[in-house]
Amino acid sequence: MDKLEMHHTLMAAKARKGLSWEDLGRATGHSPVWVASACYGMNSAPPEAARKLTEALGLDDDVIAALMAFPTKQWDGAIPQDPLIYRLYEIVGVYGPTLKDVIQEKFGDGIMSAIDFAMDVECEENPHGDRVVVTMSGKFLPYKSW
Amino acid sequence: MDKLEMHHTLMAAKARKGLSWEDLGRATGHSPVWVASACYGMNSAPPEAARKLTEALGLDDDVIAALMAFPTKQWDGAIPQDPLIYRLYEIVGVYGPTLKDVIQEKFGDGIMSAIDFAMDVECEENPHGDRVVVTMSGKFLPYKSW
Amino acid sequence: MDKLEMHHTLMAAKARKGLSWEDLGRATGHSPVWVASACYGMNSAPPEAARKLTEALGLDDDVIAALMAFPTKQWDGAIPQDPLIYRLYEIVGVYGPTLKDVIQEKFGDGIMSAIDFAMDVECEENPHGDRVVVTMSGKFLPYKSW
Amino acid sequence: MDKLEMHHTLMAAKARKGLSWEDLGRATGHSPVWVASACYGMNSAPPEAARKLTEALGLDDDVIAALMAFPTKQWDGAIPQDPLIYRLYEIVGVYGPTLKDVIQEKFGDGIMSAIDFAMDVECEENPHGDRVVVTMSGKFLPYKSW
Amino acid sequence: MDKLEMHHTLMAAKARKGLSWEDLGRATGHSPVWVASACYGMNSAPPEAARKLTEALGLDDDVIAALMAFPTKQWDGAIPQDPLIYRLYEIVGVYGPTLKDVIQEKFGDGIMSAIDFAMDVECEENPHGDRVVVTMSGKFLPYKSW
Amino acid sequence: MDKLEMHHTLMAAKARKGLSWEDLGRATGHSPVWVASACYGMNSAPPEAARKLTEALGLDDDVIAALMAFPTKQWDGAIPQDPLIYRLYEIVGVYGPTLKDVIQEKFGDGIMSAIDFAMDVECEENPHGDRVVVTMSGKFLPYKSW
Amino acid sequence: MDKLEMHHTLMAAKARKGLSWEDLGRATGHSPVWVASACYGMNSAPPEAARKLTEALGLDDDVIAALMAFPTKQWDGAIPQDPLIYRLYEIVGVYGPTLKDVIQEKFGDGIMSAIDFAMDVECEENPHGDRVVVTMSGKFLPYKSW
Amino acid sequence: MDKLEMHHTLMAAKARKGLSWEDLGRATGHSPVWVASACYGMNSAPPEAARKLTEALGLDDDVIAALMAFPTKQWDGAIPQDPLIYRLYEIVGVYGPTLKDVIQEKFGDGIMSAIDFAMDVECEENPHGDRVVVTMSGKFLPYKSW
Amino acid sequence: MDKLEMHHTLMAAKARKGLSWEDLGRATGHSPVWVASACYGMNSAPPEAARKLTEALGLDDDVIAALMAFPTKQWDGAIPQDPLIYRLYEIVGVYGPTLKDVIQEKFGDGIMSAIDFAMDVECEENPHGDRVVVTMSGKFLPYKSW
Amino acid sequence: MDKLEMHHTLMAAKARKGLSWEDLGRATGHSPVWVASACYGMNSAPPEAARKLTEALGLDDDVIAALMAFPTKQWDGAIPQDPLIYRLYEIVGVYGPTLKDVIQEKFGDGIMSAIDFAMDVECEENPHGDRVVVTMSGKFLPYKSW
Repeated sequence: MDKLEMHHTLMAAKARKGLSWEDLGRATGHSPVWVASACYGMNSAPPEAARKLTEALGLDDDVIAALMAFPTKQWDGAIPQDPLIYRLYEIVGVYGPTLKDVIQEKFGDGIMSAIDFAMDVECEENPHGDRVVVTMSGKFLPYKSW
Repeated sequence: MDKLEMHHTLMAAKARKGLSWEDLGRATGHSPVWVASACYGMNSAPPEAARKLTEALGLDDDVIAALMAFPTKQWDGAIPQDPLIYRLYEIVGVYGPTLKDVIQEKFGDGIMSAIDFAMDVECEENPHGDRVVVTMSGKFLPYKSW
Repeated sequence: MDKLEMHHTLMAAKARKGLSWEDLGRATGHSPVWVASACYGMNSAPPEAARKLTEALGLDDDVIAALMAFPTKQWDGAIPQDPLIYRLYEIVGVYGPTLKDVIQEKFGDGIMSAIDFAMDVECEENPHGDRVVVTMSGKFLPYKSW
Repeated sequence: MDKLEMHHTLMAAKARKGLSWEDLGRATGHSPVWVASACYGMNSAPPEAARKLTEALGLDDDVIAALMAFPTKQWDGAIPQDPLIYRLYEIVGVYGPTLKDVIQEKFGDGIMSAIDFAMDVECEENPHGDRVVVTMSGKFLPYKSW
Repeated sequence: MDKLEMHHTLMAAKARKGLSWEDLGRATGHSPVWVASACYGMNSAPPEAARKLTEALGLDDDVIAALMAFPTKQWDGAIPQDPLIYRLYEIVGVYGPTLKDVIQEKFGDGIMSAIDFAMDVECEENPHGDRVVVTMSGKFLPYKSW
Repeated sequence: MDKLEMHHTLMAAKARKGLSWEDLGRATGHSPVWVASACYGMNSAPPEAARKLTEALGLDDDVIAALMAFPTKQWDGAIPQDPLIYRLYEIVGVYGPTLKDVIQEKFGDGIMSAIDFAMDVECEENPHGDRVVVTMSGKFLPYKSW
Repeated sequence: MDKLEMHHTLMAAKARKGLSWEDLGRATGHSPVWVASACYGMNSAPPEAARKLTEALGLDDDVIAALMAFPTKQWDGAIPQDPLIYRLYEIVGVYGPTLKDVIQEKFGDGIMSAIDFAMDVECEENPHGDRVVVTMSGKFLPYKSW
Repeated sequence: MDKLEMHHTLMAAKARKGLSWEDLGRATGHSPVWVASACYGMNSAPPEAARKLTEALGLDDDVIAALMAFPTKQWDGAIPQDPLIYRLYEIVGVYGPTLKDVIQEKFGDGIMSAIDFAMDVECEENPHGDRVVVTMSGKFLPYKSW
Repeated sequence: MDKLEMHHTLMAAKARKGLSWEDLGRATGHSPVWVASACYGMNSAPPEAARKLTEALGLDDDVIAALMAFPTKQWDGAIPQDPLIYRLYEIVGVYGPTLKDVIQEKFGDGIMSAIDFAMDVECEENPHGDRVVVTMSGKFLPYKSW
Repeated sequence: MDKLEMHHTLMAAKARKGLSWEDLGRATGHSPVWVASACYGMNSAPPEAARKLTEALGLDDDVIAALMAFPTKQWDGAIPQDPLIYRLYEIVGVYGPTLKDVIQEKFGDGIMSAIDFAMDVECEENPHGDRVVVTMSGKFLPYKSW
């Protein structure tokens, strides 16, 4: 079972069980965003998480193995098209050099890791319309001379 | 004075005065990230903010007008190359469909606005290495039928 | 049933029943353009609209579920090739900066939303040749400072 | 004087005189959108319009000649980046096949001309936020067999 | 039956019957180039032409319907690779601005329509090697102000 | 004097003298299209033609040398944007495989040369609107086995 | 049988029979490179060559027809990736303007035909390592004025 | 003096002296193609060759240093546009896999070097039109296991 | 059996047998990296290595033939997306001109061969986190004049 | 002084002084590759290294500031063209998935950092031709769940 088949199997079971990412987050003891990314085949799950996830969804050991496999991370097209994802891309384009300057002024020359990294999504209620709050946390990695 | 000349003028004055984005944030009553994005020519500044910013930096009225002008937002290349900015692009590629699913499960069919939008950067101290924490907050815009 | 299969099912039923988009607009109480976009898999239908549409076309509940699913919006190629669609792309290229200037002079710094958005098509009779009249209406979203 | 220099000259004069596109539309007897597109160098102006426009802006005959010259229409990049213009591109991507189907069902096999074409922008006041209304009108051109 | 299957069906019948495009042109009362383009799925055929064509090729009503369907015109790759087609692309690249200048000097600001358009191919015998003569005829469409 | 400078010099002189491509064609004994292409720097002129052309335009020997130089043929962008030139590109996309089939059925396996090639533009008066008639004539080059 | 199936059939038969391109060149009276290109579906074979080739490989008449069919020449990607083919592309990139200058100085303004063209590959023994010798011969086609 | 300035200096001197690449080949004891490639800035010249070349052209020591500098080899665009160079690109596209097969059948798994490489151009007189003969010779480099 | 099927067969057997690339390196007397590249279909294996590898994995002669076949080396996309592979691409982008300068200063004008080439990966233990050590060794190929 | 001007200043001083990267490595106590990358503007130098480097090259304080500035890392084109750099790109293409598999089998799911990274180049003498040995050492960064 490859990651694509795994993804379809997991999504179908999730819909059948009527479980949300929040539910699966609670069932595995992980963040809903991370659980979703593992189910989308973009992160490998530790054995314990894979086991709990398949239990919650009533799936078998094939899926555990597929969840634990190390993924090859790939996406379609240099520029995303779906409006929700494009807006994130636009934010990187518009604010990229700004973020580089603000981060490097605060931390020195280096980057925010996308590997030692976590991300969450919250809903902030607001009378003018609820807001999506995305929080990213990545380890600062300083450039080194040698 | 166009946005590019304005940017160079502001960066030179900021370096000369030894002020940080935090300082300029305090001076204008805005977030350091927003102030930086206005100085990078990616957002237009309201008159009050433009005035306070140029005062703090000892610059004249030309710069106020340039800060208030409505920008054309553009960036170089579909795929950014600087490692700090590329990592953000990579996060959009790797986690884009995950975020779409998590957000739309929570909010319904729609997007996070990149226009009615705010972003901040914090440093989280950590014994294993400090972490960059980026928080984005965008209004949820539901798709409408008509 | 995914959006692609749904699309083919709906188009076949529409041809079989000999119904026009106008007819389906009346049957659902929505604009013909919006109904078509939902049938092309580019918008999710509210339950009521999905039910009325499948009733009008004599289709079953699978199609209702597919119509209600939140779509991933994607299209082929950066530059469209079919002459009808290319002409729209050309209009964006030729008149994009003009529209930006005219809209922002009238409304201030911001954009026309493509999410809180509606569009219609009318035929304007004209002795020199009928004219296609496309009307777009999108909420103005002002940029905010923070 | 080429179209680029003409554009900068016109924009500077317009700012100096404090005239809006509406004002220039009235001064020339043309639509504000068309006047703007001619000033952006994307349409050639008939002699009368060129004369009235330069009169209104206090400019000389060089500008008249430049306004009357036939332009080469070009734009930067296959995919626009400024959010206002990108949203229009996104609309073409998302609704292109829908529009093709709705138009061709109404008119037969053919296209909406982008040459025999007019466009206007109106502000529609709305308690939930004002709306930008863009109206395009293009002659329907049927495909012919031969 | 979609346009692709129609194309294969028509080409197979044409080969089986040993008919040339000239023959099919005569059989339908249309130009051989236009008939070929309809068989390649790039133009919709009027009912009479579709009927005569299928009669000449001994095909049934499915093919008539497919010939009459309005096509979506698409091609592979921005730059064609087959040498015969590339040479045409090269001619557009090399002579495009020349043609623009010559046509607009003769006709005024406007374009040659690719919709109200016809094209033919003739063989011109020549002792130094026969020549391919391609004739294009497109309605001149003047730009309009509004 | 390189081809670009030569082009600007020639266009300025042509405007100053008020001569058309037809006039320059007559003055040189060549087709107006070919003369234009030589003035656009896309063909090298034989000495006689270069001499007559500069005489007609009142230019000096530098221009003769530049007209005779062998050009490097280049154009902007894989896909042209100006509507007049794009329509030609669209014709190649839409009718490319059709032309290949019609030409190769008539002539055998081979191509129409874009080097041993001539092209002309005529105006065909027509009550429904004048038509642009473009005629291309290229030597047929058969593929050879070896 | 299309060119792709023909290619696989021919390659399998060649491997089964243990014949080299040299052998097939001798069997058909053509150059090994040309025979290979016909088997790769990039050239159409004259009837005699097609017959001799299928005889040598013990294949039937389907393959003869496929070998004789006029090919559509296409390749994957603008820039080849396999190292052997990339090196040829690199040679075109590095030496392209050099070859243009040397050829045009020798022959006048024109090109080397890729249609009336032949190519061979020889092995030149050399104590420092054998050398691949590729010889291309193409008819010179002079540009013509008209 | 960088390679670009060197190139223009050398071309101007070559034109002034009326020398051909053949002449410069004889003057330096190298192949005309190699001399041209060094003058185009695509190869570094050994001291002796650089000295003889500048002597023949009456240039000074700056040019010697520039000729000896190690070049960065770069070219414009993935796909060349000038017809002479495009035909070479087309040959690589059409015959690339054929050449790979013929070379590797003869030599084993490996490539023809584009570094340990030489190339010459000859004119072959022919009553049907002279032919350009390009000969490439590159060391065969076998792949190695390790 | 083509290289893709061979790859899947080899990977499945390797997983079934629980062997590492180190094990397969020992079993064949080759480097683990080279063995992996042969199993990924990017290098052809000499007969002895192919035999030992299939023996170790309990596979049959089909796989031997496939391992020995000369590969066509191809990869997906100009810019890799998986983070591990992208980092290598980034290193080439960031350090490419640096490496060119350092290598050519040391060795003269030339390149490091990617054909006569070997590469290994070691783990270097380190209290601040283990390090991946990649060593590449390629024959220096000097450019030659001719 | 920006990084580009700094680069030219440093390269000119290095040539004037006749110093090699080895010399500058010794002068600063850093690796020659790292020193070169700092001089190419791709890494920021710590104050001590910047001071020693400018001392060795006889340059002033402007250069120290430029060396210490945090760079924006960018390179030309997705695919490098200079043969030396392209070979490195080709190695990433050909061996990328192989390296991913070998590294992740040895270290677990994660990547080799390109930030906490060092690289060196050595010459290995070899009777069959000297070899370039490039050694990369990057910290292994494991993916984390959250």
